[in-house]
Amino acid sequence: MRQDILHPLIVQNKSKIIYIIMDGLGGLPREKGGKTELETARTPVMDKLAALGSLGLLDPIGPGMTPGSGPAHLALFGYDPIEDNVGRGILSALGVDFPVTDKDVCARMNFCTIDQQGIVTDRRAGRIATDVNEQLCKKLQAQIKLSNDVEFFLRTESEHRALLVIRGDGLGGHIEDTDRQKEGVAAARAVGADAASKKTATYVNEFLDNARIVLKDDAPANFLLARGFAKHEPLQTMEQRYGLRCAAIAQYPMYRGLARLVGMEVLPRPDSFEEMFNKLKDNYGTFDFFFMHFKKTDSYGEDGNFDAKVKVIESVDTWVAQLEQLKPDVLLITGDHSTPAVLRAHSWHPVPALLYCENGLGRRDAQNEFGETACASGALGRMPMKHIILEVLGSAKRIQKFGA
Amino acid sequence: MRQDILHPLIVQNKSKIIYIIMDGLGGLPREKGGKTELETARTPVMDKLAALGSLGLLDPIGPGMTPGSGPAHLALFGYDPIEDNVGRGILSALGVDFPVTDKDVCARMNFCTIDQQGIVTDRRAGRIATDVNEQLCKKLQAQIKLSNDVEFFLRTESEHRALLVIRGDGLGGHIEDTDRQKEGVAAARAVGADAASKKTATYVNEFLDNARIVLKDDAPANFLLARGFAKHEPLQTMEQRYGLRCAAIAQYPMYRGLARLVGMEVLPRPDSFEEMFNKLKDNYGTFDFFFMHFKKTDSYGEDGNFDAKVKVIESVDTWVAQLEQLKPDVLLITGDHSTPAVLRAHSWHPVPALLYCENGLGRRDAQNEFGETACASGALGRMPMKHIILEVLGSAKRIQKFGA
Repeated sequence: MRQDILHPLIVQNKSKIIYIIMDGLGGLPREKGGKTELETARTPVMDKLAALGSLGLLDPIGPGMTPGSGPAHLALFGYDPIEDNVGRGILSALGVDFPVTDKDVCARMNFCTIDQQGIVTDRRAGRIATDVNEQLCKKLQAQIKLSNDVEFFLRTESEHRALLVIRGDGLGGHIEDTDRQKEGVAAARAVGADAASKKTATYVNEFLDNARIVLKDDAPANFLLARGFAKHEPLQTMEQRYGLRCAAIAQYPMYRGLARLVGMEVLPRPDSFEEMFNKLKDNYGTFDFFFMHFKKTDSYGEDGNFDAKVKVIESVDTWVAQLEQLKPDVLLITGDHSTPAVLRAHSWHPVPALLYCENGLGRRDAQNEFGETACASGALGRMPMKHIILEVLGSAKRIQKFGA
Repeated sequence: MRQDILHPLIVQNKSKIIYIIMDGLGGLPREKGGKTELETARTPVMDKLAALGSLGLLDPIGPGMTPGSGPAHLALFGYDPIEDNVGRGILSALGVDFPVTDKDVCARMNFCTIDQQGIVTDRRAGRIATDVNEQLCKKLQAQIKLSNDVEFFLRTESEHRALLVIRGDGLGGHIEDTDRQKEGVAAARAVGADAASKKTATYVNEFLDNARIVLKDDAPANFLLARGFAKHEPLQTMEQRYGLRCAAIAQYPMYRGLARLVGMEVLPRPDSFEEMFNKLKDNYGTFDFFFMHFKKTDSYGEDGNFDAKVKVIESVDTWVAQLEQLKPDVLLITGDHSTPAVLRAHSWHPVPALLYCENGLGRRDAQNEFGETACASGALGRMPMKHIILEVLGSAKRIQKFGA
């Protein structure tokens, strides 16, 4: 919905909205005609909500399109997954809680191994341990100074992965990857597409040239590859767009970062499902909207572990039962994308979704269980994921009448 | 999907995709509450695929919009049926295998009957025989010379229908029809909308003035009406857009022409369903994508022959059984538009579609037979026809992940 149309219609009220996001929820059957992970899971709580609520299928980007976590979450929050998409470098920064400013160009780095000729022999430096990565980042940060007092920040993500931030005035982010995505060739030089980005590229190359010297005896991690250069372009916050005071309760850095990107308050990292519920309960009066992120459905999907994904879904079902204590007005249970265990990867399949309105303002359909097949015939239909927040806001009586 | 987003994500692999297009497949029941042609047909093969695959409804242009064959097929191939629509004259040229160049303006011609005052008394000249049409075209081609050595080409289609091509530098195609679509009035003069088209109109009028003299004793075919003027604007090919090597196996000229327009290799014209299968089998290793076009569903729809349309669908069902020998990874069975026998014409109704993934990467829904009512509750939902190729490409693992 066009912001100029929607924004004047937004009203605030005391309604509570909870998003239960099981990462990579959508699945596929193990054999043709069989049941998906969600259909296999015993989910009496969600099935009861399904019987009283509306089901549907959400396309994160569009038919056939497989999303990364960034665009998929943006769509869940009502942003355009293409127009508002965030560069990989920014996601890395968000994921390590780096406070990005509008002077920053970020890139995702890999420690890698090069031979004496500079040929990349291992793009991941044998997946060095995270503490080795931390020591190398410290050393590089201490020993390298860029010209013109331009600042840089190097932060460990995990294993061979790190974040590089170049901070300065008038820097551009349109820089091609130095990572050529293959071994047996030398890394590319950083090349900027416009004047501002050429300026950034100079500093990136200065950093890399120095890094090669500093790391020369640190094989297998004796160089770095950069990709996903991006400048931070702040998005409107969810409070600005929808008048919602939003809180994120999520265990994993990337999702905490994505929530921060749309202006949510990210509550301290919970250690367990139990703590996720306690944080929700403790903060229930302070916020209008809660983004609850459950990661393991995706992790087990990526591992190809169908049964473990089923078990996580069953645990989340038990977790959802506790919401009976809070009775949120509007509850959305879905995923950000599909990660079928049989594919061991994100996929293009639309994501099953369940909308339940405790406030009595929701429709039901003929479906009585939460699963992909049932969702295919549900009352929400098949819709672009970015539209679901409007259904949610409407159900919470937070959008006024358009036109007379 | 925006080409600038989609294109970098396209990958090639060994997957095989087959489109089974039954022209005008969508139908209506003979009496309210009854079954459509597709629902009446006994289709055990497609019903089995429906039980294992996903059904849906495709809108060729949009709700309520009745498409011609041109825009409908463009939508099937993922082109925008409005933005990329091709003028009627170009379709005529494609349909007779005329090699159109970018210097050509094409128009669809009708031989017609005029009285001594020039009033059109029969817009189709009594549907003259095709061989009469051929003789008249030869005569006109031989006896008319346009000024400034501008070339023209006149080609027989069938019965009263022909193709006119004006070839020259700097010609425009924005010319109104001289066919007023009714009898009892004189034909209009050709009028161009801009300078380049005014130039073309001069030659069109010169041709028509001469034709009237040449044909003066050839009643009932003593004049011509022109419509659908169009200049050839080449489209990106499907190989450019999707990396697919595409083959078309189709009996009728128009569809062979449409396939050529999007860069498919058009295999020699098959004489029978059997030959259609043999050509598919013989060329199976050479192409990634096969467009199989079955025309008679539409022809019988236009004739108002419900039962004959049912029988053709049943024959195609038998034909589809042979695909078991080839096991294509992704199979789409649908039509280009609806041609309900009760309407005797193309219609606005969305088209039933069946997506089946032999590769095990498809979802199923609760539907167990291929028909309009089942498709209304299928997992594909109701989607713009132009999106279906993305679902197909995704299912063939030919689109990489967007964003991180």
